Amino acid sequence: MTNHFSSERFTAIYHLTGREAEARAKAQDLCLEQTVELPDALVTDETIRAHVLGQIESLSPVDDLFEARISFAVEIVGGELTQLVNVLFGNISLKPGVRLERMELPPSLLQGFRGPRFGRKGLREYLHAPERPLLCTALKPMGMSADELAELAYQLALGEIDIIKDDHGLADQSFAPFDERVTKCTQAVARANEKTGGHSVYAPNITAPAHLVLERALFAKRLGAGALLICPGITGLDAMRAIADDDRIALPILSHPAMQGSFIADRTSGVSHYCLFGQWNRLAGADAAIFPNAGGRFSFTMDDCRELSAGCEVEMGHIAPIFPTPAGGMSLDRIPEMRAMYGRDVIFLVGGGLRSHSEDLVANCSYFRELATQV
Amino acid sequence: MTNHFSSERFTAIYHLTGREAEARAKAQDLCLEQTVELPDALVTDETIRAHVLGQIESLSPVDDLFEARISFAVEIVGGELTQLVNVLFGNISLKPGVRLERMELPPSLLQGFRGPRFGRKGLREYLHAPERPLLCTALKPMGMSADELAELAYQLALGEIDIIKDDHGLADQSFAPFDERVTKCTQAVARANEKTGGHSVYAPNITAPAHLVLERALFAKRLGAGALLICPGITGLDAMRAIADDDRIALPILSHPAMQGSFIADRTSGVSHYCLFGQWNRLAGADAAIFPNAGGRFSFTMDDCRELSAGCEVEMGHIAPIFPTPAGGMSLDRIPEMRAMYGRDVIFLVGGGLRSHSEDLVANCSYFRELATQV
Repeated sequence: MTNHFSSERFTAIYHLTGREAEARAKAQDLCLEQTVELPDALVTDETIRAHVLGQIESLSPVDDLFEARISFAVEIVGGELTQLVNVLFGNISLKPGVRLERMELPPSLLQGFRGPRFGRKGLREYLHAPERPLLCTALKPMGMSADELAELAYQLALGEIDIIKDDHGLADQSFAPFDERVTKCTQAVARANEKTGGHSVYAPNITAPAHLVLERALFAKRLGAGALLICPGITGLDAMRAIADDDRIALPILSHPAMQGSFIADRTSGVSHYCLFGQWNRLAGADAAIFPNAGGRFSFTMDDCRELSAGCEVEMGHIAPIFPTPAGGMSLDRIPEMRAMYGRDVIFLVGGGLRSHSEDLVANCSYFRELATQV
Repeated sequence: MTNHFSSERFTAIYHLTGREAEARAKAQDLCLEQTVELPDALVTDETIRAHVLGQIESLSPVDDLFEARISFAVEIVGGELTQLVNVLFGNISLKPGVRLERMELPPSLLQGFRGPRFGRKGLREYLHAPERPLLCTALKPMGMSADELAELAYQLALGEIDIIKDDHGLADQSFAPFDERVTKCTQAVARANEKTGGHSVYAPNITAPAHLVLERALFAKRLGAGALLICPGITGLDAMRAIADDDRIALPILSHPAMQGSFIADRTSGVSHYCLFGQWNRLAGADAAIFPNAGGRFSFTMDDCRELSAGCEVEMGHIAPIFPTPAGGMSLDRIPEMRAMYGRDVIFLVGGGLRSHSEDLVANCSYFRELATQV
């Protein structure tokens, strides 16, 4: 057998429940389950034992759990994001008491991924906002016509919101078909920009059936949309990566967390906020990770949000840091507190809260910017 | 505003935690969160209130939970599977204490989906096995060369296993590249079929980066592969649907549960086994739903497995019933018990257990068939 294996390995860090013996058994099982899917006794080939099997690098107590560092040969990934996430958490997702916390990838594996095309630095340049927090809002509710949504987009762009995104439930429904909506909203934002001299962008939702994601992204680009929204929990993580990598599109990408909630429903299973919304989003080319902020309509804690933010900026070789984008029922009142928590490298996404503040939407936008900018 | 809404609605059934008042509040929140994503007070348009908002059809106690039947206008789905699952569970996945149990879709919505191309009846005809349980096994471990995997496939086809699938960790690694593996395994199975007069098929794993799934499926078809394996939890559910719908491919599809474990990690959140592995797999065109059987390497209970099987066959208009495919560390000893539990409309997937029974792999296959066939 030709030896296809270098000595390069990548590491996944898991939290495991149970006492030490149980945690060690889980770690050993994980080494088999995520690679050969056979009982240890049936793995007889020496090269496979030496290289393909996962290896426990360490096992140590962390709070009331055990933390296992498990390494895998880079070659079992074959350079594909789909197989990387499969090795990290595919079958083991089906077993209780295992949570993927972080991944550490060597340069030889990272080099296969472009990561965010813009990242923090690039998105700031693109939006002409070198220092301050960025502002985002959503076109909603579902059920409005393309004309109504475009009028709303116009008002929001007059208010110089940086990114005006579709609500993630806007797909290709008859009341506001994708092509018509993108055409009209793009034009509306351009008209407002002419008037204000600003740089607002419209980000249509390209979450779509598999054969239409690229088509919608290309259409949006052609019509002049300035960014894109996608739900990798619905399309698959790699569908976002494919759009981010496509030089014909070259637009900033906002990753929306729909359908990803089950991964973080529980402290002792699933994937950490850090890894799922931070590291995975970055590897798959998102420039911003939308998530439900603590204290809103959802149940993320402050610690969850801090961990998520850390995953958005931890060093990952050439893979750029991205913007945490707290959302999910935020009111304008909460901006100062969020500013204190997230610093300036953040996108504030306020939807309904921007509408309800006063009757004058453009004035609300100015107030939003004022709150976000002051320290 | 033109009225884009018929009176047709579809229904989602959720289990909600809490006392009645809390459960009702959750159901009301769900009606907003899965549609308009705005507080009730901000939804002022009458058409949107009447049609777009989810509606609570009933709320009743079930064991220590509440069961809510919530209906949605078919038009908010826009005919797309991605948006259907988004309405059913997108944002609400991020909130605790909500589990999607079942969906009930009217003909006007179902007609947009082909469902399984083969289903139980079609797959039985295709495999020349009109009555008995079907037999499946996996090529493993990862790390074997294409030649070694092909030799293994040859032996398994000599043993007349109906479906010889790739382990789901076989992607496009240098030690067994996809094209070479598919070419050699397909040829090996064809050679064995000539010798036995049997109808074994090889099912390569087409779980792949988004831009390559279709390419690999078409390659596999051209080379003569007889079925396909895909992990919708990795590629996205609709990537499987797109392959199933493609008339150029027209091969049976096995759905593998990798990465889907977090949806069923908890009784009070996520998506039920019935809906996730049964109803969703069928709507997305799978002909068989692989899952870890009770009592194997994983933690599904007997009840989980029974519910999953029920979801594989519940009436869904023209959407065909499919095969539950229990797997995950099954030994041949357990076949009689599984036969009793699942009846004859089942695919038994035995991987390592088929290798370890005796040194003679072909004899093991015969024994497997004998056990599976006797009542």
